[in-house]
Amino acid sequence: MTASAYMRIAQLLESLVANGSLRPGDALPSVRAAAAQQRVSKGTIIHAYATLEARGFVEARPQSGFYVRARTHAGNALPQRGLTRPAVTRTSSRARVRDTLGDLVGSKVTSLGSSFPDPSLFPMQALNRAMAASSRSNSFAKTVADLQLGLPDLRHAIAQRYLELGYVVPMEELVVTCGGMEAISLALQAVTKPGDLVLVDSPMFFAGLQLIEQLGLGVVEMPTGVDQGFNLGVLDRTLDRHKIAACLLMTNCQNPLGFCMEEAKKRDLVELLRRRGVPLVENDVYSELQFALRQSRAAKAFDADGLVLHCGSYTKSLAPGFKIGWVAAGRFREAIVNRKFATTLGTSVPPQSAIAHYLKEHSFERHLRTLRQTLVGRVNQMSLAVGQYFPKGTRFTQPQGGYVLWIQMPEAVDSFALFEVAASHEIGIAPGPIFSARPGYRNFIRLNCSHPWSPSLEAAVRWLGRAAGTACSEK
Amino acid sequence: MTASAYMRIAQLLESLVANGSLRPGDALPSVRAAAAQQRVSKGTIIHAYATLEARGFVEARPQSGFYVRARTHAGNALPQRGLTRPAVTRTSSRARVRDTLGDLVGSKVTSLGSSFPDPSLFPMQALNRAMAASSRSNSFAKTVADLQLGLPDLRHAIAQRYLELGYVVPMEELVVTCGGMEAISLALQAVTKPGDLVLVDSPMFFAGLQLIEQLGLGVVEMPTGVDQGFNLGVLDRTLDRHKIAACLLMTNCQNPLGFCMEEAKKRDLVELLRRRGVPLVENDVYSELQFALRQSRAAKAFDADGLVLHCGSYTKSLAPGFKIGWVAAGRFREAIVNRKFATTLGTSVPPQSAIAHYLKEHSFERHLRTLRQTLVGRVNQMSLAVGQYFPKGTRFTQPQGGYVLWIQMPEAVDSFALFEVAASHEIGIAPGPIFSARPGYRNFIRLNCSHPWSPSLEAAVRWLGRAAGTACSEK
Repeated sequence: MTASAYMRIAQLLESLVANGSLRPGDALPSVRAAAAQQRVSKGTIIHAYATLEARGFVEARPQSGFYVRARTHAGNALPQRGLTRPAVTRTSSRARVRDTLGDLVGSKVTSLGSSFPDPSLFPMQALNRAMAASSRSNSFAKTVADLQLGLPDLRHAIAQRYLELGYVVPMEELVVTCGGMEAISLALQAVTKPGDLVLVDSPMFFAGLQLIEQLGLGVVEMPTGVDQGFNLGVLDRTLDRHKIAACLLMTNCQNPLGFCMEEAKKRDLVELLRRRGVPLVENDVYSELQFALRQSRAAKAFDADGLVLHCGSYTKSLAPGFKIGWVAAGRFREAIVNRKFATTLGTSVPPQSAIAHYLKEHSFERHLRTLRQTLVGRVNQMSLAVGQYFPKGTRFTQPQGGYVLWIQMPEAVDSFALFEVAASHEIGIAPGPIFSARPGYRNFIRLNCSHPWSPSLEAAVRWLGRAAGTACSEK
Repeated sequence: MTASAYMRIAQLLESLVANGSLRPGDALPSVRAAAAQQRVSKGTIIHAYATLEARGFVEARPQSGFYVRARTHAGNALPQRGLTRPAVTRTSSRARVRDTLGDLVGSKVTSLGSSFPDPSLFPMQALNRAMAASSRSNSFAKTVADLQLGLPDLRHAIAQRYLELGYVVPMEELVVTCGGMEAISLALQAVTKPGDLVLVDSPMFFAGLQLIEQLGLGVVEMPTGVDQGFNLGVLDRTLDRHKIAACLLMTNCQNPLGFCMEEAKKRDLVELLRRRGVPLVENDVYSELQFALRQSRAAKAFDADGLVLHCGSYTKSLAPGFKIGWVAAGRFREAIVNRKFATTLGTSVPPQSAIAHYLKEHSFERHLRTLRQTLVGRVNQMSLAVGQYFPKGTRFTQPQGGYVLWIQMPEAVDSFALFEVAASHEIGIAPGPIFSARPGYRNFIRLNCSHPWSPSLEAAVRWLGRAAGTACSEK
């Protein structure tokens, strides 16, 4: 009861900030006044205010109270779309992308280029204890069926989590995978054959583009806004014009744009695809990192026909390095099991067992609350620094979840050139062009904000901003 | 010194049995006489005789001494080849195979159909302690490079093992994979494109055929003898006739035939393929399960040009369920790393760390000695039972390693029919036709001999033999 009361109040205040009723600098009501007004205890109000503070919405001023925070990027211009209409790429020559990926892999002193979360964000000690405890009681996969589908205990826990999030995915539909990437790979393979066209966002995470290329698929990139993704009318017309075998989309915490699609739009998307019989591979590996107090359900929640292949992972939410993901495969479970049989056969058992043990013994929800609050703070810090140090005309996203910032610099800046000079200073960044199958995003970069804020991190961002500024003044 | 002395003597006696100088029932020299003759201690002779006993070559008779064992299958007829000439299959319709695989996956009371080793063969307690210990000190993959290539500690241990086996594979060439199956899958993908032809043994392990089919590859199956594999002259002429993109072969403990190719033949094979520039994907996941005291090195040992992609695994030798394999990729490392980036991205860290820890703290060699001796005994038991219970005219292999028996029953027996009636009695077997892309091996089955011998196991084999006999008498 208490938990939902403080959350309800925090959500109310957050929506007042969002719709402009409360503006930066406005004072929140005193704890005593708010408690009387809302008919809750003062403890509940304190809990709500502390939550909003941790999430970066308000700040406490000593001897004075809580004030709505001046979020520097509130007035910030958002990045522009890279495309005005859908673009088809049959075969791309992404040699430069491959070279870049090779460099991204290198160990940089300040690694802002990869999409790997900072390891300090995760409950490593508790996971290690779970690993040790589950090892002792581990009987390993008894049957080949367990090996192929994944440990029943873990599949049960995943099905439970779907229930907690407010929808039903039976455990029979779940196949545990070697991380989210295998989930996406198997899902795509289950619904396409070489030569087919896959519809995706532009920009989109580059590993997905690599995968599409390696599977011999063509790609239709949709013009995607930083707010709610692409327009469903444009999608409808694109499906008229092209034979699309499947869509591969992120509906929550889109990488690199950071938006979460509203549930109503997800429902419409699923309905539109259902009418045309087009499967949706929903890459939802950042699902649990939404900043809003009320988590938006996945498109999978509206999938009555088994056409949505929902891909999840513990890599970004709980246990990086364990490489445990899953796919809720809808009507394609058999195709995915067959594929897995001939690719990795099964998923390593001890990490599955450790995660199942952790989820039984600990509050995943509590860990996620801390994780989201930490990420909100780090994204805010990075946003402040980018706003401060990057040249005039720079635009960047206001992520609704995850931990990456998508930055549009002035036209004069070539992100590959910046990537190279930054690398020579041991700073890793992800240049914009690798996020598309076609040339584009020349003056965009993506930064990873998951690392703890520090003087050296700030110095790196300052250095980047100045290097971008120098590029502008040289033109 | 002592270890090599006893092994030298055991090898000498083994070769005398092999070439017929010592026959079943012959007495070995007394311990005293042998010690004097070989100029070693009596302890060394006792150690050598005990080793031969454990390996099933000799038996101790109380108050009498050691005698060469009457190996029931010594006079046994070997199975015949399924092919007389190479056969090309462009696209197979293996629907029935897929159905069968689905059933193999089911949990049978007596599972003789899968190729999974019995879990009791492995040092699970020591591995669990290693998992717990390495979890505590685990820093997880620090860089993306570690994640993609595998833990440096483990790659170092694998490179060390190659050295112990007598050849050099630098750790830079190694990529750790999600089990041996991913190693083979990545290796094949690195050297082929859809539509290419791959040359394989016939019969061969069915998961490999599934993989080839799913990658859109055609297959050339070679007539393969149960002794030393296919004829290199036939290989040469086949390479003249067909454009072969790669060979996928098992050179040690071939599954299902059980032979180990001699090193001289492996050298010739590598040289022949080198001259024609054809890569060899060497599936060597059973390598450590050779029964001979002197382990035969892989074809990789003779690979001076980086054309051999050597695929190994700990699944059959140390840690089933951990799903940790590797590929020594030769000149194809970059292609494999790129592929892995877009399929599973990386391999789970804790199991890698646990295996590295185990290999540091324990004697892998000692575990393998015990494992091989146990498997020799179990394969012998199964051979005895098959010889005793199966109908007249049944032929079966004398495996030089591994734990499967390839059985040719009389023509009248349909192995799919036997498979189905056995399944209804909760006995799982692998029917012969799934080991080929083309119709064939109708009256063959493969049995898994890794399970501890027991009255219920014997009853299952007796039941199978009688069912096969009934099929014969009904014709």
